[in-house]
Amino acid sequence: MSARPLPDPAALACPLPIADYPHVLLAHGGGGRLSQQLIEGLFGPAFANPALDERHDGAVLALEGGRLAVTTDAFVVSPRFFPGGDIGSLAVHGTVNDLAMCGATPLALTVSFVLEEGLEMAELERIVRSMAGAARAAGVPIVAGDTKVVDRGKGDGVFVTTTGLGRVPAGVDVAPRRARPGDRVLVSGGIAQHGVAILSVREGLEFDGGIVSDSAPLHGLVASLLAGAGPPHVHVLRDPTRGGVASALGEIAQAARVGIRIDEAAIPIAEPVRAACEILGLDPLYVANEGRCLAIVASEAADAALAALRAHPQGAGAAAIGEVVSAHPGALVMRSRVGGERLVDLLTGEPLPRIC
Amino acid sequence: MSARPLPDPAALACPLPIADYPHVLLAHGGGGRLSQQLIEGLFGPAFANPALDERHDGAVLALEGGRLAVTTDAFVVSPRFFPGGDIGSLAVHGTVNDLAMCGATPLALTVSFVLEEGLEMAELERIVRSMAGAARAAGVPIVAGDTKVVDRGKGDGVFVTTTGLGRVPAGVDVAPRRARPGDRVLVSGGIAQHGVAILSVREGLEFDGGIVSDSAPLHGLVASLLAGAGPPHVHVLRDPTRGGVASALGEIAQAARVGIRIDEAAIPIAEPVRAACEILGLDPLYVANEGRCLAIVASEAADAALAALRAHPQGAGAAAIGEVVSAHPGALVMRSRVGGERLVDLLTGEPLPRIC
Repeated sequence: MSARPLPDPAALACPLPIADYPHVLLAHGGGGRLSQQLIEGLFGPAFANPALDERHDGAVLALEGGRLAVTTDAFVVSPRFFPGGDIGSLAVHGTVNDLAMCGATPLALTVSFVLEEGLEMAELERIVRSMAGAARAAGVPIVAGDTKVVDRGKGDGVFVTTTGLGRVPAGVDVAPRRARPGDRVLVSGGIAQHGVAILSVREGLEFDGGIVSDSAPLHGLVASLLAGAGPPHVHVLRDPTRGGVASALGEIAQAARVGIRIDEAAIPIAEPVRAACEILGLDPLYVANEGRCLAIVASEAADAALAALRAHPQGAGAAAIGEVVSAHPGALVMRSRVGGERLVDLLTGEPLPRIC
Repeated sequence: MSARPLPDPAALACPLPIADYPHVLLAHGGGGRLSQQLIEGLFGPAFANPALDERHDGAVLALEGGRLAVTTDAFVVSPRFFPGGDIGSLAVHGTVNDLAMCGATPLALTVSFVLEEGLEMAELERIVRSMAGAARAAGVPIVAGDTKVVDRGKGDGVFVTTTGLGRVPAGVDVAPRRARPGDRVLVSGGIAQHGVAILSVREGLEFDGGIVSDSAPLHGLVASLLAGAGPPHVHVLRDPTRGGVASALGEIAQAARVGIRIDEAAIPIAEPVRAACEILGLDPLYVANEGRCLAIVASEAADAALAALRAHPQGAGAAAIGEVVSAHPGALVMRSRVGGERLVDLLTGEPLPRIC
């Protein structure tokens, strides 16, 4: 037995400061003293809230009846720190946004970490504090979590999985299948910023104007949109992350068995981002966004919807970029600047791995 | 633009069979065609249910009001296949059990995968099918998911994170803080089987009797216990996974600021498991379990609780192993076979990394 002749029991409740460990050890994921110390010394203070403070196997939340939105995402972005964010804030924003894309008000997040043995503890702290800050700014508590540690060389520093719970307000019915011919397609701002920001760090490039990720929580913007357009008129919401605007709209076309037609000239893109995409050989339609939102709305509400987006600071650059059509169901087509229509396929290769 | 002169749009909705890819590629996590193919060809059919079939950014579930239990866990077990289970079934059981330890009835799971480029597709299929089977057997749908792929050498095949949602029935109030002096400590069966089963594969050892993981969903057993003892009398439930029985009880003692005293002679352990622990130099009190449950119950309900556990197939080997005391708050002590009491600390090192 790993027991000893007795007290001081008080010492049990008083783990060493995590600062005594400059690097993550396997034992930090072992379920014993060091795991507890990580929880008490880092996660607990950073994420503090009543549900988490119970230190139970799960959180228990009081809920009204109604509809609950649930979403989960793993984050493996490389590099972990980039202009405009890091893996921690990105994980919070990504999950809050998936809830927002269901029309839901975020209620709670959970987080699980898979850490690589040898990760600098200071880096983990920086990520956790960023995550806690992003969650606070979005008004969403992190109510449960888990940490595992894998041997050196069997991971890549930090992988984060966040799960989000949200409440879908009465009257809101947002889903890909609701796109129908005649609907208008809106985007909340200039596309492709997140992917270009990540790639610029990865490739050691600096672009004019210092391209910064658009990573941001979008539930406030969505609430404005729903209020401005009227909930029944907002048919589909989607944040065009991996695979970009092309893949997001292509998937909606498939799910709803409708066609979608967009105008190349109408798609907003900041000039430095467009220039960077040209240098990098990337098609901006396929580049990931983390703080942009596509909205498919009834045509009679399109003007009000666009005005509502533009009235919100995150939607200042919003634009109407296309429409839902009955022709070519399942496909996204683009009217080019020079005229003519082309089929825009889903992303096929993988130009930008580990973008989120 | 990665576009082409046009149709056949129908081809978009008809991805290649995943069997055409013997290994996982980075593009399977890229958010484009191959991601979609993985979803349509593998995850969708395996996990099919109405919420998942919406192919939305999140699932929307109808809920009655009340209390919702939420829990999340990452699974990094190595090896991924072991006697009695695999990383897929383990992820389902582990999360269902964390819900059960809140006294909750499981409602839904989400799953996220972090795959390593080059993983055999057949192995992923085997894991996904095992997961789907475990979820079906437990009666819990997998309602949302996500997949990322990391470069070869930056992961270890498959990491799985599952999040569980459950409903806490009225009258149930199970939490570590509820342990109080006089309560009895029960365990649902012989300890240390899961950890020994994993280690036997890892070390290439074969033990007499073929030690098999105890991995199993415990919500049925917990429902029987709550019904038999009466919900208000069940104060704390805990599945002693990482860190084993010693760490689980030590943490409860700390959370409730009570002492816990257990009797070495009363702790059930199968003879082959005990022998294997001796050969491996492991203290069974610190070895992980995945299908065992600790229950701390009011003394007046202890006999009924033990009878209820024993009446369930998963609790046939249940035993009363100790009691909650007012002495030495925050500490777990053990009365040894030869008399005398010793402090049992939380797990300090990491004898068994990546056990779950």
